[in-house]
Amino acid sequence: MPSRIAGTGRAQSEEFRRIIEHATGWMIEYMEHPENHPVLSRSKPGDVKSAFPEEPPETGRSYESIFADFEEKILPGVTHWNHPSFFAYFAISGSYPGILGEYLSAALNINGMLWKTSPALTEMEELSLDYLRRMLGLREGFFGMILDTASTSSLLAVAAARETSGEFDIRKRGMAGRAELPRLVLYTSREAHSSIDKAAIALGIGSDNVRKVPVDTEFRMDASALRRMIEEDLETGAKPFCVAATVGTTSTTSIDPVAEIATVCREFGLWLHVDAAYAGIAAILPEKRFVLDGCDEADSLVVNPHKWMATPIDLSAFYCSNKTALREAFSLVPEYLRTEETDVVNLMDYGFQLGRRFRALKLWMVINYYGVEGLREMVREHIRLAGMLAGWIDDSDLFERTAPTPLSTVCFRLNPRKSTPAKDSRFLDELNEELLKRLNETGKVFLSHTRIHDAFSLRCAIGNMRTEESHVRGLWELLNSIGRELAGG
Amino acid sequence: MPSRIAGTGRAQSEEFRRIIEHATGWMIEYMEHPENHPVLSRSKPGDVKSAFPEEPPETGRSYESIFADFEEKILPGVTHWNHPSFFAYFAISGSYPGILGEYLSAALNINGMLWKTSPALTEMEELSLDYLRRMLGLREGFFGMILDTASTSSLLAVAAARETSGEFDIRKRGMAGRAELPRLVLYTSREAHSSIDKAAIALGIGSDNVRKVPVDTEFRMDASALRRMIEEDLETGAKPFCVAATVGTTSTTSIDPVAEIATVCREFGLWLHVDAAYAGIAAILPEKRFVLDGCDEADSLVVNPHKWMATPIDLSAFYCSNKTALREAFSLVPEYLRTEETDVVNLMDYGFQLGRRFRALKLWMVINYYGVEGLREMVREHIRLAGMLAGWIDDSDLFERTAPTPLSTVCFRLNPRKSTPAKDSRFLDELNEELLKRLNETGKVFLSHTRIHDAFSLRCAIGNMRTEESHVRGLWELLNSIGRELAGG
Repeated sequence: MPSRIAGTGRAQSEEFRRIIEHATGWMIEYMEHPENHPVLSRSKPGDVKSAFPEEPPETGRSYESIFADFEEKILPGVTHWNHPSFFAYFAISGSYPGILGEYLSAALNINGMLWKTSPALTEMEELSLDYLRRMLGLREGFFGMILDTASTSSLLAVAAARETSGEFDIRKRGMAGRAELPRLVLYTSREAHSSIDKAAIALGIGSDNVRKVPVDTEFRMDASALRRMIEEDLETGAKPFCVAATVGTTSTTSIDPVAEIATVCREFGLWLHVDAAYAGIAAILPEKRFVLDGCDEADSLVVNPHKWMATPIDLSAFYCSNKTALREAFSLVPEYLRTEETDVVNLMDYGFQLGRRFRALKLWMVINYYGVEGLREMVREHIRLAGMLAGWIDDSDLFERTAPTPLSTVCFRLNPRKSTPAKDSRFLDELNEELLKRLNETGKVFLSHTRIHDAFSLRCAIGNMRTEESHVRGLWELLNSIGRELAGG
Repeated sequence: MPSRIAGTGRAQSEEFRRIIEHATGWMIEYMEHPENHPVLSRSKPGDVKSAFPEEPPETGRSYESIFADFEEKILPGVTHWNHPSFFAYFAISGSYPGILGEYLSAALNINGMLWKTSPALTEMEELSLDYLRRMLGLREGFFGMILDTASTSSLLAVAAARETSGEFDIRKRGMAGRAELPRLVLYTSREAHSSIDKAAIALGIGSDNVRKVPVDTEFRMDASALRRMIEEDLETGAKPFCVAATVGTTSTTSIDPVAEIATVCREFGLWLHVDAAYAGIAAILPEKRFVLDGCDEADSLVVNPHKWMATPIDLSAFYCSNKTALREAFSLVPEYLRTEETDVVNLMDYGFQLGRRFRALKLWMVINYYGVEGLREMVREHIRLAGMLAGWIDDSDLFERTAPTPLSTVCFRLNPRKSTPAKDSRFLDELNEELLKRLNETGKVFLSHTRIHDAFSLRCAIGNMRTEESHVRGLWELLNSIGRELAGG
């Protein structure tokens, strides 16, 4: 076989050693000075793709020329989630131990569909999710598995809920053409993430059957309204089957009253799923443990270490207190995947994805390298910085907060002299859209937006491990300088 | 903030440089001598997990002690998919350029949910899947996206099929409690992968409504039988909506007659999905291009570079000729994810998963480092080796093939003097189960099994880039030595 294909060749190994050394040097420079790049890519649509030939190369190229392409053609098209002034969506952090984990995982290249196909994958997944469960202060008895995204976690949760609701045997008989099957209804708050709707769409529940429960003045699901809506639906002959509560909504990071919702779920026999993808991590702080109050009663819960726990994307932690339901919803073992072990967990039985890469390694490394203490300090500092920014906004004549700041995300807008009532002004919307545009064009910060009470609102999400007080001060100065210009104009 | 959390600290960067150098040294030694490890892990259930403390560490640990754990506690629990005598399931290859891609991707840690959140991610995904499409000889006009697994790819395909079948608006109204909705029926062959059933289960189609079309003597879907089954179902008032054909079934790698099936699909207006996860890659060889004959007419197709194209897991390439259907099935844009660009692809719109890591980088690097030529040589060599083994088996007095060998996977069993007819012998099943057990216990090879015509059959799947003729010879010697012992006993 030609040298480059026989991967064991000494020459190729030495080439690899050199390119990794080079890439590591580049990486360290990049990680130490992410601010040398504009945080939001300035690439125009098509720029990256058109920089490359249309046809793949017939013969192999050198690592040097491949790496040059990476730096010159790909990197300008990267929006830098590593930048300490990335404040958009939910800011995240890769980290050195997380990168090491991915590096080793890519080399091992194992597929943990079955316990047997790498016992270490299944057992490290169990161990690291057990560590995380302890850090979050969740009770024992949750079965944990790692998935790619919270979207997938929530989809599995709703599927298990669907399977356990009534004796409909949807798994076998499906849902179409069955006159006896009642309309299945899922409840979530108006502020819930779109992934809940998407799960309902994929599972054939239908977006019309995702009822949006009203929220209180702090954007938390109204548990009394939930009860009323369930009663109404029952009267029409529909079958309520699941409630998806949110700990840390995407717009404002509001925290649903899970304990109250759990009471309603118990009363009506509904599956309780909790989407704590972002805010659940805050529970590693003793002083913020309350964000998961009531979650011990949940049937399932998702929290994302790839969001606020220094773990490279992707790593979503999915917990289910009803392992059997998950298995009943999904297990299907063809002959070619049958193994002799009977006392082990084969992770393919608990979802629809067969292939499974070794994600647990990076999470285990992150927890071990920083220690629980180190991760707590990061999360605590982010919350402190958000509080500081919120205070400046409250004291300002130019800006106002548009939602409470329970954790590390601040919602606010420009409203000179705080004179214009929230709902009345298309003018303020335009002013803030312009503010956001100018901010992001500086290349120094990147924020995203939302609408709150139908008003355009900026969001500053603090969650990158490199973000320090100076970066938040820098943002505040930029906001004031552009804000004054816009207000005075 | 404490030193370890501020990721930009010089000291931490130097620690990282040292551990990466150490890990690279370990990795090269590992890649050059995978045979130093037993291919199938000898770990017993619980061994790996119980080697670690129950509680996560409060304070951070050194990389040295973390790496020592990796080598001493985790590695013994690894089944080595890198081993050149890993012949189970479908053998795969990580590769140096693929590892480099994952390494850099973990460092960038970008989330390409929207074009804007890293234009390079979306555009490199487009570019690398366009390269792959050209390599496979598929027509232009397929929209490509990268997913984690073929299971997810097939689920999206069937969801899009469901949405486009009739005017049922399942996305909005769901499937339950709708008396007017006909039973929806999906067709696939008896030999299709379990992921098709799992997609139907998840999507609420139901496993009963996955009709298994009979196969011919070479395990290929019988297109006439398919037509008859569709006609039967139509007569009962059911709604056939999708056919999932397979190019390279898991048991025997049989190749469905896609062109014939496409004709039936056109006739009845059914969505044609092709699962070419393993065998599709063979089409990069001009002499094997025929495996994808008819696939230009498919509505969707999945092929997995993480199987037979030297790309670390996970990377499944999903192609859809009806981009609009996919978008209509899944697009849902909440305010906080709305962007100003209108002329770009936001990949979150084409599936249910929001988060998206930068997988295209490794695929692009693999294609560039080996060149199309290099990858062709690898695939061609694997097919040659499988043919060699098949020939030895055919000439042997001890063994017989149990299925044709169209590509790189050989199905066979021990049948001394080829005297026992396939279906009659529980004795032969036990003999072959014992053979497989003893083979895998040697630690020198790892094979898996299937049932063919209800008889236990071994599978030798050649697909690792380090597999050379000597490894196949080594397997053949082992087979003969254990086989003779069992036959003579």
